Amino acid sequence: MPEALARPSTMPQPLPDLLVEPAVLAALAEDLGRAGDLTTEATIDADARARVVIAARQAGRIAGLAFARHAFRALDAEARFTTSIDDGGDVAPGDVIATIEAKTRALLSAERVALNFAGRLSGVASLTAQYVKLAEGTRARIVDTRKTTPGWRAFEKYAVRCGGGANHRFGLDDAILIKDNHIAAAGGVAAAIGRAKAYAGHMVKVECEVDNLTQLEEALAAGADIVLLDNMTPAMLRQAVEITKGRAKLEASGGVNLSTARAIAETGVDMISVGALTHSAPVLDIGLDFVAEL
Amino acid sequence: MPEALARPSTMPQPLPDLLVEPAVLAALAEDLGRAGDLTTEATIDADARARVVIAARQAGRIAGLAFARHAFRALDAEARFTTSIDDGGDVAPGDVIATIEAKTRALLSAERVALNFAGRLSGVASLTAQYVKLAEGTRARIVDTRKTTPGWRAFEKYAVRCGGGANHRFGLDDAILIKDNHIAAAGGVAAAIGRAKAYAGHMVKVECEVDNLTQLEEALAAGADIVLLDNMTPAMLRQAVEITKGRAKLEASGGVNLSTARAIAETGVDMISVGALTHSAPVLDIGLDFVAEL
Amino acid sequence: MPEALARPSTMPQPLPDLLVEPAVLAALAEDLGRAGDLTTEATIDADARARVVIAARQAGRIAGLAFARHAFRALDAEARFTTSIDDGGDVAPGDVIATIEAKTRALLSAERVALNFAGRLSGVASLTAQYVKLAEGTRARIVDTRKTTPGWRAFEKYAVRCGGGANHRFGLDDAILIKDNHIAAAGGVAAAIGRAKAYAGHMVKVECEVDNLTQLEEALAAGADIVLLDNMTPAMLRQAVEITKGRAKLEASGGVNLSTARAIAETGVDMISVGALTHSAPVLDIGLDFVAEL
Amino acid sequence: MPEALARPSTMPQPLPDLLVEPAVLAALAEDLGRAGDLTTEATIDADARARVVIAARQAGRIAGLAFARHAFRALDAEARFTTSIDDGGDVAPGDVIATIEAKTRALLSAERVALNFAGRLSGVASLTAQYVKLAEGTRARIVDTRKTTPGWRAFEKYAVRCGGGANHRFGLDDAILIKDNHIAAAGGVAAAIGRAKAYAGHMVKVECEVDNLTQLEEALAAGADIVLLDNMTPAMLRQAVEITKGRAKLEASGGVNLSTARAIAETGVDMISVGALTHSAPVLDIGLDFVAEL
Amino acid sequence: MPEALARPSTMPQPLPDLLVEPAVLAALAEDLGRAGDLTTEATIDADARARVVIAARQAGRIAGLAFARHAFRALDAEARFTTSIDDGGDVAPGDVIATIEAKTRALLSAERVALNFAGRLSGVASLTAQYVKLAEGTRARIVDTRKTTPGWRAFEKYAVRCGGGANHRFGLDDAILIKDNHIAAAGGVAAAIGRAKAYAGHMVKVECEVDNLTQLEEALAAGADIVLLDNMTPAMLRQAVEITKGRAKLEASGGVNLSTARAIAETGVDMISVGALTHSAPVLDIGLDFVAEL
Amino acid sequence: MPEALARPSTMPQPLPDLLVEPAVLAALAEDLGRAGDLTTEATIDADARARVVIAARQAGRIAGLAFARHAFRALDAEARFTTSIDDGGDVAPGDVIATIEAKTRALLSAERVALNFAGRLSGVASLTAQYVKLAEGTRARIVDTRKTTPGWRAFEKYAVRCGGGANHRFGLDDAILIKDNHIAAAGGVAAAIGRAKAYAGHMVKVECEVDNLTQLEEALAAGADIVLLDNMTPAMLRQAVEITKGRAKLEASGGVNLSTARAIAETGVDMISVGALTHSAPVLDIGLDFVAEL
Repeated sequence: MPEALARPSTMPQPLPDLLVEPAVLAALAEDLGRAGDLTTEATIDADARARVVIAARQAGRIAGLAFARHAFRALDAEARFTTSIDDGGDVAPGDVIATIEAKTRALLSAERVALNFAGRLSGVASLTAQYVKLAEGTRARIVDTRKTTPGWRAFEKYAVRCGGGANHRFGLDDAILIKDNHIAAAGGVAAAIGRAKAYAGHMVKVECEVDNLTQLEEALAAGADIVLLDNMTPAMLRQAVEITKGRAKLEASGGVNLSTARAIAETGVDMISVGALTHSAPVLDIGLDFVAEL
Repeated sequence: MPEALARPSTMPQPLPDLLVEPAVLAALAEDLGRAGDLTTEATIDADARARVVIAARQAGRIAGLAFARHAFRALDAEARFTTSIDDGGDVAPGDVIATIEAKTRALLSAERVALNFAGRLSGVASLTAQYVKLAEGTRARIVDTRKTTPGWRAFEKYAVRCGGGANHRFGLDDAILIKDNHIAAAGGVAAAIGRAKAYAGHMVKVECEVDNLTQLEEALAAGADIVLLDNMTPAMLRQAVEITKGRAKLEASGGVNLSTARAIAETGVDMISVGALTHSAPVLDIGLDFVAEL
Repeated sequence: MPEALARPSTMPQPLPDLLVEPAVLAALAEDLGRAGDLTTEATIDADARARVVIAARQAGRIAGLAFARHAFRALDAEARFTTSIDDGGDVAPGDVIATIEAKTRALLSAERVALNFAGRLSGVASLTAQYVKLAEGTRARIVDTRKTTPGWRAFEKYAVRCGGGANHRFGLDDAILIKDNHIAAAGGVAAAIGRAKAYAGHMVKVECEVDNLTQLEEALAAGADIVLLDNMTPAMLRQAVEITKGRAKLEASGGVNLSTARAIAETGVDMISVGALTHSAPVLDIGLDFVAEL
Repeated sequence: MPEALARPSTMPQPLPDLLVEPAVLAALAEDLGRAGDLTTEATIDADARARVVIAARQAGRIAGLAFARHAFRALDAEARFTTSIDDGGDVAPGDVIATIEAKTRALLSAERVALNFAGRLSGVASLTAQYVKLAEGTRARIVDTRKTTPGWRAFEKYAVRCGGGANHRFGLDDAILIKDNHIAAAGGVAAAIGRAKAYAGHMVKVECEVDNLTQLEEALAAGADIVLLDNMTPAMLRQAVEITKGRAKLEASGGVNLSTARAIAETGVDMISVGALTHSAPVLDIGLDFVAEL
Repeated sequence: MPEALARPSTMPQPLPDLLVEPAVLAALAEDLGRAGDLTTEATIDADARARVVIAARQAGRIAGLAFARHAFRALDAEARFTTSIDDGGDVAPGDVIATIEAKTRALLSAERVALNFAGRLSGVASLTAQYVKLAEGTRARIVDTRKTTPGWRAFEKYAVRCGGGANHRFGLDDAILIKDNHIAAAGGVAAAIGRAKAYAGHMVKVECEVDNLTQLEEALAAGADIVLLDNMTPAMLRQAVEITKGRAKLEASGGVNLSTARAIAETGVDMISVGALTHSAPVLDIGLDFVAEL
Repeated sequence: MPEALARPSTMPQPLPDLLVEPAVLAALAEDLGRAGDLTTEATIDADARARVVIAARQAGRIAGLAFARHAFRALDAEARFTTSIDDGGDVAPGDVIATIEAKTRALLSAERVALNFAGRLSGVASLTAQYVKLAEGTRARIVDTRKTTPGWRAFEKYAVRCGGGANHRFGLDDAILIKDNHIAAAGGVAAAIGRAKAYAGHMVKVECEVDNLTQLEEALAAGADIVLLDNMTPAMLRQAVEITKGRAKLEASGGVNLSTARAIAETGVDMISVGALTHSAPVLDIGLDFVAEL
């Protein structure tokens, strides 16, 4: 039997700036439009500076602070952004997450963009963390899917890592995942896996979705690296684990929610994939509070 | 008293292609990566064609079908995409939303991008429609906020329209919305509104957030076009409506959820703004089903 | 009667760097082409540094110095750019506008781009300032139109502000302006305004163009926020002001030039819109003078 | 003596679509903003179609119709755009320039972008044509400068060709033009030309600006391909022509306007460069007139 | 022992248009510059049409014809492009590869861009095919590296497939390849592989470079999916194959050239990686020949 | 007879950062993909810093170090990059080219991109330098062609300059080069040159390709600035030089390789153009060596 998938309890590695910065600049341009922040220009003195904090309004897991930092810096290159909690850390309501000192205009004009990024990504991380907690003590890792917001795949998958989850493939091109329509077209599980292994490069893993245990046996015999067990009951999943005997990694998928996840995790599968992590996570409620004029 | 805000019961006007197409192409590039759809290339014959449908797995309001159409067309210029229900229409579980005939490879490679767009935007529309239904028979319109996904503002605000909601401002530059920090910096409600009206062009409306009825009076006296009543109880909102006597539009904000919305709507306010429409709407579950080889 | 539109005599708020910098980099790339500045590379020593000034060759109003600063900085990150007069200030022939110390190559290679931006925007500001001066002492504000250079709308409208003018709408999406063809299609002024008010969000103002006083009455009755009086004589404009009695803002348009503007301004209209501000302003003649080698 | 510069009296070659289309799409996106054309959506039926014409309001030379065609096509792929006069042709007030049949919404939403491009470029062409007419019968060609609108160099230089003018260099990289500061830095005219000829590739022409006839002799001796005679009187220009005896092309520059151009052209110089062609041409007044519903 | 890596003898799957087209448009814009194809405009009649062929001047393997087709189509939407040989096919000197009928101007203006793409990619394919031929009859597959032209990774790796080679990883993110510096930093082969397996997602393969057979044993024990044998003699490679007994795939790297490849292939390794495929392949000499005016 | 083309033995002028930086960022994004450098993140401590060198593995001419510097700086803004040899300098195997101190992660993640740029451009420079050496003592300059990698024209032509070569035209728009098909279409050499000279601006040189000495006479008579002698033997080239007597520059082209270049150079032609400089130069083998942890 293969070793359980593990992941060191370290903070996730930060995203490279060259991915973060263009997204933030585009978001600011979207919000500032053609005329800029009329309200702030009308009411705030150009020289005013202030200290504000980003604070949690509810409990959760933080992700995406680098996006917030870039947002303030884009409007005030001298902005000082200091975190009290880093990406991957947990907050309780009222916790200060970051403190920013900058021109008041920059603070107010960048506020919404900063919170839109950090709130959404923290929402993904927080929902992931809930699933990860449910699977604690089992071998099951919580993994994401390709059901991400177009344009945000790298970001949302990063947030999943902040939540303690692991990443499934990042696109159609970095791994093979054979689904029902591929199987039907190729003429069966074995044929599809055979074609995939012949086609794929040696650095590419091959996963195959199966609907029943007969297909599972077929997939194992054909040499799938991973088998996705679609919409199976815990009892069937347990059987699948026994049949497989570690010959492949097993991924449970379908019908996973916060009520069913624990039972699924206890079946012995290696991964549980949850589309909701990235397609239906509510935002984490965080806000910006004024502390003092400087 | 001003006339109630109304909206003709027509379908929303479509987004221009020149906004939709680049977003779809970018999403496909994100998913296809550097190597393309390995699985489909390995298992599906290059000449195979098929008919598939996009079908609803749950009840809801549809938005974003043009994104799906562009996704399939981008990979097969000859793809035929026919809708059974258009943006702004309602679906029950199992309803066919659209039928697509195209190369099987194009269908499978574009599927996820098509559904990621349409599912998310339908999710926004569906949540909006729930709030709109709650406000039925009152003068209150459901409006969105700037709490949108960076890069998606035009799209998510379109989805709000598909849900029967109305749009608040689109950015920092098309209207003035004075909030607490602006008021503090400007030295009070009257001063802030005064500066805003002096600064803004004649095509720009001025809204001011107030926390209590004293501030409301001040805002009305200063000539605000709209007053945002922040976090007030229905009782206070009702008082605010009485005080205002139609001198300005009134927007209720804060503490709005599916349990409280009706009571708020019945107070007589003109608008209820709901951040959750765009920051926490779960995806509408729609899927792609294979119908036949062609 | 509503208060006259006013504007504090402050300098215009600067455009955000994130709008300015990409435009400047694109302009430098356009000018440097694929091979760079052959002349300067051939004749100027790589280490040479110099002090130069940007000076006015004619009287006018300055706008766009940030574009010039970015141009020099893009080619020499250590360039020191100091202004003697800021955007919104007036110059006489010979006045020094800015002093730059940088590598001589950067100075000569960026010169044309810097002047192309600053000269054009100062041209817009200068023409605007002439119209504003003509309207002095009246309630009429000089406003721009959408007749801007494609790609330059935010910049040229900023220059109008530097000239003391005010901005009309920035695009098709931030306000409603009903023109003759819309009226014809909708079946009359009242119908068009009715449809517009029903369609527009609560943050959107509605303006309607009228050709005669009957239409004006109709527009006022239908609740237009602003009425555009197209191609009317001063006598008619005066009548329109009397009829309107402050129920809406009035904008005069058509046939406005430096000879007619004063008479129009004296009719009591609130705004005079002038397409020429952005479509036909000649460049302000400014140049770069060598001061000293460093 | 070298042959006079000539140019066949053909229409200018069209700009490649791949330059035109992205500029038009960007301009439409700038105008449509995040919410689209609110007015047109509110008042015009989605299915309505119409025939309109672009007509001249004043006499002039036409340029830029391809930009207009792309604008209408971008919003209605079925739009039919037929020209009565092509780029390079002359119009009198009232002349129909083009007829467009398309969806009424597309016509109204693209109108301003179409006219902004075509009006500006026709303005450049028209001013150029005036100068070209003044130089008729002389050997002098009217040429442009690098004093173009950033982002528009290829377009404005195309418009100059439509006006019958010729193009000076397109950027800093396609030819060498030695100016006073280069001469000073290099240690004189001969040294600067020497360095330039040594540095430049064999496909690159070398032009040198001179202020007096001594410098002219020096430039001719050093082998300049073209000499720019800066700010000289017609008398001096005539002398320069005599001295040069065809050993180089001669370009007159500085102090050129519609009053002085003829006298300069008669001196026998080969080219007269006019910055105003691209930096101060007023727009040509053209408009869109409704013809019929379809 | 695992099955030999195989690949069906089919033609490579085409690259999606959405990757090809933007690269071609950018290349045309680079070549046409700000003024277009002066020579062709001067000498070729706008209405002229012609038939040309792309023909081989030397023997080789073809790749990249879609880039050529897009180049001609971009300048003449009606261009007819017919291939006689498709990507992945072999040519002898003089063979016609494709026939194009289009406007003569489009043919001449797009010629260089079309050939620059197709010649380079065919060069990569041709060199790959030579290596593949040398390895025929062995289990060794020829694979590429990340030593690709920046911006061209997807294209050059496609060309490798056209040559019959297989692709190594496409970037730093789709597979793990532990090299000497990683091993040193992590404290040895076992530690590095352990950290990698713990860190990587379940869809990610782990390869480790080793310099000697002791490290090989360590890597196998630590569970590497693939081991890269760096700079080993054929004798050592043979020993490595024996030691490994199919527990991992083996990749030979370093010192591979056309003289040594056969001996390396015969050692029984699974892959031979060759940087030269993409960093030093000479262009395949193909040219455009005029056939007839139309 | 005209003076020989010369070029001062100075180092080439650096490319402007605004051309280099976007290319490097795009290359890093291509390599880092959606998930970043998995291997380095897994095995290298986030705080580790190191000193590395870029060293030559073979003799050659260096070009492109600015690309390498930008690559490391993009991932570690504090990276210190110091060159021992600059662009245009020669290296022997083992020579240190540059020393970099930075975060170890940045060093390893940017390594391949840095080397891909610098190795390729040094490859172009090195091949150029070989040809330049062969032509030493003759009047012939080695020049490049438009057979460059799409997207890399400015970069590869810069590398040619680093190799001591000179640049032919940069695109279709900065000079005229009449080839056989243009001649055929225009009705002969004289007609084609006549049309070209009439069409081109005064800053544009006109070159004409000829196949024989009769055409050469015709081209000279028609006033070509440069004549390209296509595929002529040294004997014919010598004749061409004698016939021309300095009336035009002469460029030899076709059949040029390292064996034939000297003989061609000795014929007295002014330029020898070599497509292989940019289409078939093998990479210069340079690598990154670890020196010390910091």
